[in-house]
Amino acid sequence: MRVEFINPFLSSMLNVMSTMAHMELIPEKPTLKKDETSMGDVSGLIGMISPEAKGSLSITFDAPLALATMKGMVGEAPDEINDEITDLVGEITNMVTGGAKRLLSEKGFDFDMATPIVVSGKNHSIHHKSKGPIVVIALRGELGKAYIEFSFDE
Amino acid sequence: MRVEFINPFLSSMLNVMSTMAHMELIPEKPTLKKDETSMGDVSGLIGMISPEAKGSLSITFDAPLALATMKGMVGEAPDEINDEITDLVGEITNMVTGGAKRLLSEKGFDFDMATPIVVSGKNHSIHHKSKGPIVVIALRGELGKAYIEFSFDE
Repeated sequence: MRVEFINPFLSSMLNVMSTMAHMELIPEKPTLKKDETSMGDVSGLIGMISPEAKGSLSITFDAPLALATMKGMVGEAPDEINDEITDLVGEITNMVTGGAKRLLSEKGFDFDMATPIVVSGKNHSIHHKSKGPIVVIALRGELGKAYIEFSFDE
Repeated sequence: MRVEFINPFLSSMLNVMSTMAHMELIPEKPTLKKDETSMGDVSGLIGMISPEAKGSLSITFDAPLALATMKGMVGEAPDEINDEITDLVGEITNMVTGGAKRLLSEKGFDFDMATPIVVSGKNHSIHHKSKGPIVVIALRGELGKAYIEFSFDE
């Protein structure tokens, strides 16, 4: 388990949500994913490649939290997941991964990011298929939950 | 539009499905994705990074086609999408991308693959968020459709 990766991804997520959407999320204790409990309605996914390891990251939102995030950013939001929301979730995924990339680079881990993919669909679930364990960090907002998950080939 | 990428991904997909699952899929004409019509029930997603471009690939299956693929490979299949099926879709995504990687390498395009992520959830849709156009290739099987989609930053 890449425990040294947890804080860069977590602090980058909290920072992006706070500065961009004026939203303070409360993180729960990171866990290893054993069963498929972290379902959501819209997810941003991105692949990562470093000389040492390859992996993937996902950020999954409950729909009400994703909509509230847009409202926090631009003052208004649609009533349901649409292209504006999937664009926003793609941007958040890029920013969180980019922020973590800078923090990890300071620790000597350099990785390249692929381009994000956003999945929408009520109650979908995400299955990272790298060879390593899957780290899950749940974050609570007033209107729902978000989940950061990542996994790297060891 | 990276037209030169179409045939490597398409021929690799047809080859994997034919040799692994004894399933002959019929490809439709590749198109550019304009609206979100290619929904499915289980998708394998992977990030790709080359010195020239970054991008993402997805392979989306209707549930009956994914189940039939497993039956074609191992002789039996579960009644619905489970971990065996998401593992299988992750493997197929790896094999198709790996096959395309070899074919593209012969043309002078070298890229690295991240690790696959599999999404399950009825009727989800996939939104590639690179800067380039999204190429979609629909493939028809007896029991449903599959879609290969890819997009690269230009």
